[in-house]
Amino acid sequence: MEKCEITVRGYHLDQHGHVNNTRYMEFLEEGRYVFLDKHAGQMEAWNDRGITLFVVKITINYRSPSFLGEVLEIRSGIIRAGARSGVIHQDVFRRGTGDLIIDADVTFVVFDTRLGKALPVEGALRAELLAMAEPGCE
Amino acid sequence: MEKCEITVRGYHLDQHGHVNNTRYMEFLEEGRYVFLDKHAGQMEAWNDRGITLFVVKITINYRSPSFLGEVLEIRSGIIRAGARSGVIHQDVFRRGTGDLIIDADVTFVVFDTRLGKALPVEGALRAELLAMAEPGCE
Amino acid sequence: MEKCEITVRGYHLDQHGHVNNTRYMEFLEEGRYVFLDKHAGQMEAWNDRGITLFVVKITINYRSPSFLGEVLEIRSGIIRAGARSGVIHQDVFRRGTGDLIIDADVTFVVFDTRLGKALPVEGALRAELLAMAEPGCE
Amino acid sequence: MEKCEITVRGYHLDQHGHVNNTRYMEFLEEGRYVFLDKHAGQMEAWNDRGITLFVVKITINYRSPSFLGEVLEIRSGIIRAGARSGVIHQDVFRRGTGDLIIDADVTFVVFDTRLGKALPVEGALRAELLAMAEPGCE
Repeated sequence: MEKCEITVRGYHLDQHGHVNNTRYMEFLEEGRYVFLDKHAGQMEAWNDRGITLFVVKITINYRSPSFLGEVLEIRSGIIRAGARSGVIHQDVFRRGTGDLIIDADVTFVVFDTRLGKALPVEGALRAELLAMAEPGCE
Repeated sequence: MEKCEITVRGYHLDQHGHVNNTRYMEFLEEGRYVFLDKHAGQMEAWNDRGITLFVVKITINYRSPSFLGEVLEIRSGIIRAGARSGVIHQDVFRRGTGDLIIDADVTFVVFDTRLGKALPVEGALRAELLAMAEPGCE
Repeated sequence: MEKCEITVRGYHLDQHGHVNNTRYMEFLEEGRYVFLDKHAGQMEAWNDRGITLFVVKITINYRSPSFLGEVLEIRSGIIRAGARSGVIHQDVFRRGTGDLIIDADVTFVVFDTRLGKALPVEGALRAELLAMAEPGCE
Repeated sequence: MEKCEITVRGYHLDQHGHVNNTRYMEFLEEGRYVFLDKHAGQMEAWNDRGITLFVVKITINYRSPSFLGEVLEIRSGIIRAGARSGVIHQDVFRRGTGDLIIDADVTFVVFDTRLGKALPVEGALRAELLAMAEPGCE
């Protein structure tokens, strides 16, 4: 899992003094950027072939609130590579604790911008995706 | 279903010229505010009893991109009232078309802020929730 | 002055229970979009000639806080057309009151995207800009 | 000047492929949080006395656009301590270059939450503020 950290600021909060639900989507997207930056070589190679990852579904579970000044740790990794899509799992913890704030499953397709359609995840493409994935990912 | 509209602006977009995924979470939250505003009497009655609705899970499907200047119509309604939680379903359409941009299921619990815990959805509480819900909701 | 309205939601707030400073920038940008939409014919004509308005400076005064559920009214109009730039003035009021929440002066240049530079505001261009402006604007 | 860095992501952009104007307000607020965190002892001492800094005015100059993937460096420091207010100056550079993206002057008052009013910046308060300020600040 790739990790990154975000410190909770006033502009992330709402009337409850918690991080607002809408802000976690940005934290998760930030976590995915950091994950993909770690695989920049593969991303560039795909980009040269007109291939990009498109998010098609996100499921978020809100487990526990987080508060002003806390440091959140976002962990992101590919946990599934199906025939037609893959899944990035993301956990957001209060740093230095086992407190899970949210977790999310982000389903993506491998999109060919030249063909204008999603590709089957098979052959070389599948191998490339598995090389970026967590151990045991199938 | 209660409806509201949002016009897509430059600050909603990203490098693809689409509305960014993170922004739809705000559109959905706006839609839920409009929905709850239509049931303001019930919300105030609950508020007086220390009861509030807490979102515990959101599942979003990204169906189709939306673009600068388009008007989006958000439709929101309660479609399920289980023993321990309920579900608000939300659809976002390109206004005046049948184009579905995203849909989402938002699972909530009925939280008693005085007891500090979620309440079972039964008895009077269940009746109150069903009175706000879509026809056929169970 | 063109007007639009925004209802304050939880995701606009911060730890003080006020609308966060950063959010007013979006409210102001929304106000400018609504203003420019009222002059869509001129904007399209400029667009055809490769001309666009670029914001180069914003000055915001925070006068008074606003709170959850309040409806804000944003008023926007061009108040100055100088030799090299113009100014859109914007006021945000609590609707139905004289309470000024923020005001802002937004300085813009008229940018020629084909030449890649700002144009002097003179001749036909000046006349077109003044036609969109508040009475008495110079 | 205290420094922090932000990497430009897709959700910061708009239809021009630039960071949207509204997003810089968050970057500036992040820079001020980092600045104030460096002076956490003073902030806590003030907090115990019911004193907080309130922003009353922001002037931003948009100098140059920034783009996806760039790392921005935000520098923040107090440059003026007047009789009734102070000014934090902030510069945002493209990291590792002399390219100035935006600069801003943020005027604040020292607010006494118990008295419900701004305090004159004099005596011990003035000395405390100057101890946080840039060399030469008056």
